[in-house]
Amino acid sequence: MAHPVSPLAPKTFPELAEIAGVRFATAEAGIRYKNRTDVLLVAFDDDTQVAGVLTRSLCPSAPVDWCRAHLPAGTARGLVVNSGNANAFTGKRGVEAVSLTADMAAQALGCAPEEVFLASTGVIGEPLPAEKFDGVLQDMAGKLTGTPWIEPARAIMTTDTFPKLAGATVTLDGVEITISGIAKGSGMIAPDMATMLAFVFTDAPVAAPVLQALLARHTATTFNAITVDSDTSTSDTLLAFATGKAGVAPIESLDDPRAEFFGEALRGVLFELALLVVRDGEGASKLVTVSVTGATSDESAAIIARAIANSPLVKTAIAGEDANWGRVVMAVGKAGQPAERDRLTIAFGDLVVAREGVRAPDYDEAATSAYMKNQELAITVDLGLGEGRYTAYTCDLTHGYIDINGSYRS
Amino acid sequence: MAHPVSPLAPKTFPELAEIAGVRFATAEAGIRYKNRTDVLLVAFDDDTQVAGVLTRSLCPSAPVDWCRAHLPAGTARGLVVNSGNANAFTGKRGVEAVSLTADMAAQALGCAPEEVFLASTGVIGEPLPAEKFDGVLQDMAGKLTGTPWIEPARAIMTTDTFPKLAGATVTLDGVEITISGIAKGSGMIAPDMATMLAFVFTDAPVAAPVLQALLARHTATTFNAITVDSDTSTSDTLLAFATGKAGVAPIESLDDPRAEFFGEALRGVLFELALLVVRDGEGASKLVTVSVTGATSDESAAIIARAIANSPLVKTAIAGEDANWGRVVMAVGKAGQPAERDRLTIAFGDLVVAREGVRAPDYDEAATSAYMKNQELAITVDLGLGEGRYTAYTCDLTHGYIDINGSYRS
Repeated sequence: MAHPVSPLAPKTFPELAEIAGVRFATAEAGIRYKNRTDVLLVAFDDDTQVAGVLTRSLCPSAPVDWCRAHLPAGTARGLVVNSGNANAFTGKRGVEAVSLTADMAAQALGCAPEEVFLASTGVIGEPLPAEKFDGVLQDMAGKLTGTPWIEPARAIMTTDTFPKLAGATVTLDGVEITISGIAKGSGMIAPDMATMLAFVFTDAPVAAPVLQALLARHTATTFNAITVDSDTSTSDTLLAFATGKAGVAPIESLDDPRAEFFGEALRGVLFELALLVVRDGEGASKLVTVSVTGATSDESAAIIARAIANSPLVKTAIAGEDANWGRVVMAVGKAGQPAERDRLTIAFGDLVVAREGVRAPDYDEAATSAYMKNQELAITVDLGLGEGRYTAYTCDLTHGYIDINGSYRS
Repeated sequence: MAHPVSPLAPKTFPELAEIAGVRFATAEAGIRYKNRTDVLLVAFDDDTQVAGVLTRSLCPSAPVDWCRAHLPAGTARGLVVNSGNANAFTGKRGVEAVSLTADMAAQALGCAPEEVFLASTGVIGEPLPAEKFDGVLQDMAGKLTGTPWIEPARAIMTTDTFPKLAGATVTLDGVEITISGIAKGSGMIAPDMATMLAFVFTDAPVAAPVLQALLARHTATTFNAITVDSDTSTSDTLLAFATGKAGVAPIESLDDPRAEFFGEALRGVLFELALLVVRDGEGASKLVTVSVTGATSDESAAIIARAIANSPLVKTAIAGEDANWGRVVMAVGKAGQPAERDRLTIAFGDLVVAREGVRAPDYDEAATSAYMKNQELAITVDLGLGEGRYTAYTCDLTHGYIDINGSYRS
């Protein structure tokens, strides 16, 4: 938080709508930070449906283990998020801390511990002093409110330089339904101090299995399409809660045409939150969209797009405002996917820099250099082999990244 | 070359022995650099055996394609290496440049073009002006010599901050045989200006198929065990030449016990050269050995070791002299290989920092911090699952890397 606000930060923050059935409070539990909120309690009305996407790390945090165990039940009454300590690699004490937190929140909210979902973000390997929540959660339960959303967005920040919010309203069966989401992350991952967390809330009546399917589908092109440094966190957590208070018939099957419609609105919110994470990428000065087309499959395109988006050499070139398409070729080549040098077309923005395995005959160094000075850049690679396509989102790799991550933990 | 010499550079360079049947010359062809040698011609006596390991990139350079086509024949009479231009992503003109270079070298050496091996390193995507070799190669053929090896080591440098040489002598059937090798690379890869090339020469009489098998086997734990930035080059080339002049019976089968013996000596040279590349890693200030033991297989251990060695967060922490084992846990977790948090043991040097999923009870922050100030560091991860093991070698990620790679191509 000592770092200056990202130059890619949005100029204003949206005032997200209250979601019927969702109330929250934030507080200072003093886990690690001083003079700022570091704990969020969210209370849900009965029958709130929950779905989640969790880190694929094989060394997940204790709260991730907890969520994975309780997501199959499909309903939630509470959510507790703390910043400052990830409760990861904390062994038996981590499991105890999770259990204690869920117990205290359940008591405060009047529900079962299994109905409380948990997420922690911050330093790895330090025991989480969950006893600091004692009294605090009870006190918070007496102060629950439906707005403003910027408060929970702030309470979950770690090295984030700005709070992240996005929302949408869509009309379903003539009724306006609302989706409000918050996220944190300054780096797709940076497990020491900035793992990625996102929470989305809606009053739409979406059954948990449908919500889970939509969340998983749309994570693929939103949160899973972003990268800051290729390091997957022990704590990545995306949870969606649907209170069903909107007053329309429940969506209980993916075959319900409203599922698709709601899913698109959900995707919009996820996408916006995901891009906010990239915009706050550690040390980021440029937002880069990497589009791969013409691959033999979408999966192949995704692997190639990520190889480009994760390449330190591509990212440092962008930081240097250098249209270094040779490094893009390198990244395509290292991805190990079907690609033919002599069919590659590479463009920066609308400027084609390479075509059919060589520098484009009409390559204009001056125009390309001018383009690279933009804060938002697009790199497009067409493989000329098939119909597969994928778009990944990344930022540049700058001295700021080294500053943030090369400094001592204290 | 404008960058200061790596702090990890060796204090002195070995004076490698002349290899009977190998003579070389260097010259200034003016491909890109001024006032320095940029082309190397090596001439081999008749019946010199050749083996090679080439980049796995699917967008390889034109000289890599050339070597791949001609390695199966197993014999070599010449080698031409230029620095300053990688002749990669240069399409038909790149193929023509390769062909022209081989023709000119063959004429100068009095052999067939197919017996000339080629390697280029430098900028990608620029046509290689092979016509600049006209006359130069002919002239060099008249000035061939067997020493000093530092001259060819210098001629192939790009962003390297020091020349890289390593050699060995072993006794085979009572006869002393010699291995001399040179390499370049300042980063395992940095395709714009510093792809990895290595050439090893011996007077041992090793048949091409045996040489190939030994080279492939020992590349796995030497050149393939190093990483600077995880970016695989379009041009990585390792070639070994055996002139057979040593005056001992030829090694024509892997079953010959001398093959194993020679292979170990070869491995020693490859290992030394590979470590020199890491020592010249772009921006490197620390040399890091990452050992993974207790994995379910050697392959699994290798994937985990590379995930740690490539992690930007681990590497920036090392640059900051921070014993941030939480990031090591993260890298283990993201590798996607069998691992159990509660069995992990992590040590920095001899200092165990984490054991059985939690911070080691006897963890000593002061001692660990003091250890991290060393220029050469060891990270050991024991997974506690099986017998699989692998060791990777890397450097830290510093501001120097951003400086070198974030500056404009010119």
